[in-house]
Amino acid sequence: MSQSAYAIGHQQPDTDTIISAIALARLKQATGSDVVAARAGELNPETEFVLERWDVASPTLLEDATDAELLLVDHNEYSQTVTGAREATISQVIDHHRIGDVTTGDPISFRAEPVGSTATILTRLYDEAGVDIDAETAGLLLSGLLSDTVVLRSPTTTDTDREVAERLAEIAGVDYEDYGKELLAQKSKLGEKSPREMVLGDFKEYDIGDDVLGIGQIETVEPETVLEQRDAVIEAMDEVVAERGYAVLLVLVTDLLEEESTAFIAGDHTEAVGDALGATFTDREAFLPGVMSRKKQVVPPVEDALK
Amino acid sequence: MSQSAYAIGHQQPDTDTIISAIALARLKQATGSDVVAARAGELNPETEFVLERWDVASPTLLEDATDAELLLVDHNEYSQTVTGAREATISQVIDHHRIGDVTTGDPISFRAEPVGSTATILTRLYDEAGVDIDAETAGLLLSGLLSDTVVLRSPTTTDTDREVAERLAEIAGVDYEDYGKELLAQKSKLGEKSPREMVLGDFKEYDIGDDVLGIGQIETVEPETVLEQRDAVIEAMDEVVAERGYAVLLVLVTDLLEEESTAFIAGDHTEAVGDALGATFTDREAFLPGVMSRKKQVVPPVEDALK
Repeated sequence: MSQSAYAIGHQQPDTDTIISAIALARLKQATGSDVVAARAGELNPETEFVLERWDVASPTLLEDATDAELLLVDHNEYSQTVTGAREATISQVIDHHRIGDVTTGDPISFRAEPVGSTATILTRLYDEAGVDIDAETAGLLLSGLLSDTVVLRSPTTTDTDREVAERLAEIAGVDYEDYGKELLAQKSKLGEKSPREMVLGDFKEYDIGDDVLGIGQIETVEPETVLEQRDAVIEAMDEVVAERGYAVLLVLVTDLLEEESTAFIAGDHTEAVGDALGATFTDREAFLPGVMSRKKQVVPPVEDALK
Repeated sequence: MSQSAYAIGHQQPDTDTIISAIALARLKQATGSDVVAARAGELNPETEFVLERWDVASPTLLEDATDAELLLVDHNEYSQTVTGAREATISQVIDHHRIGDVTTGDPISFRAEPVGSTATILTRLYDEAGVDIDAETAGLLLSGLLSDTVVLRSPTTTDTDREVAERLAEIAGVDYEDYGKELLAQKSKLGEKSPREMVLGDFKEYDIGDDVLGIGQIETVEPETVLEQRDAVIEAMDEVVAERGYAVLLVLVTDLLEEESTAFIAGDHTEAVGDALGATFTDREAFLPGVMSRKKQVVPPVEDALK
């Protein structure tokens, strides 16, 4: 039986994960490999806007990857992969997160770099393979880069990201500051979401020994929309902890303009998590000045504290 | 307290692991980072020959890496790392083996490629960083590449390895076939080794669920030196299994000229391992035509069979 190979990002896909799957599939096709772009969940409004803006079809929804070949983008942890990934063959990894628990039986290409987006690494891979980046692909890559770095404002942003963003913007024919503002506006559309949807909208799990840590992040230019509903959000968090048994559940409400976050907490270890973040939780809430990156500023200290 | 950062390869170091540590430390120094080349065990005779040939000092022996910063080369599995690596901070990985169980809290640079040697990848990293490769460094990198690929004869050899070998040989000012033969002759100096030293000389462990698989490899141009002592070698293997509790212990006697191996087995699962390798063990011994690579031809099928 012939099997398809899928370029696919994490569950709860964001823009960088979706456009990285598309860009990797295009690169593989350009170099003679038959790879299909796929996704492990529903598109968020920002990503829908991006695909419409550049007139690109959505990747295929892959519900179960059992026995498939997978090229993982923008993640490398089984807790974040598509269903069935443990029974799939992982043939490539491209990521900008911490090194997770994905293992393989054979040697493969695994490329992780501490840069602001997976799109940044993919741009390099096009260059290394000598494949031209057309305007549409540049627009997609730029969208992933600007989305993940909050228009180059996140502390995860490197000089490489800035250089790549300028170059992609030129190829795509857009001003990246203007285009970035359009993206941010999409990200902020929280109006119609329920508290539970806010908690689980952009959500990741991290295995820490036998415990699981869950962290949701709400990136917005209007944090008051969430903060006004804090009791309902915390109630939704308690429900999720009861259902899923997380040791700790954090939700970060990140103010994209002020570059700061408010954290809500559910589960155990409130004091230890507060200490790890250099903050004090009062009535389940703590203020985290300067914190914009879940990956870089929250996961490492909290993980250390819970080990 | 100021901590040193160490570029370090696997236990039971071979030439590719030692020269990769040296080459990475030199690259880091050239780009302004203070990294020391280190090793996790004693040098083998081939590697001693290489360091003498290119007049380079041996890397520092690191006995315990607790609390250190480590840049791992030529491996990415805790079962193969220096003592204390789980309590160290791993800040970079460069490897050409399967993806193992090393994880990190922060995003790092992790570069694995399915090529014949870690030296091949390091050559690319020099190019990407715009750092010139001098004759001495080229000689070291070439030694790692030729050693790991059995002078470009191993099935792990790729076109990239061939191109890189030619280029490094030119910079180093040697004929790589002639130089490769000198290396092979060093590798084959088995004369004075005890059966136990033969089993554990070039030895790796692989975690498979709760079980551990051990595989030793004796690469030689004179396999009869080992095969004549088969009963003593198998007795040494049984002792090692009793001491360390391996589920399976394999020793491959690889004939570098005929490009074939003879395998000895100890522990359990003899029939399953034989099936996985497409061979039959008779009196603990099986012939494996065409098998030269532990990593590519033996580990993946045996691991699958034991899962």
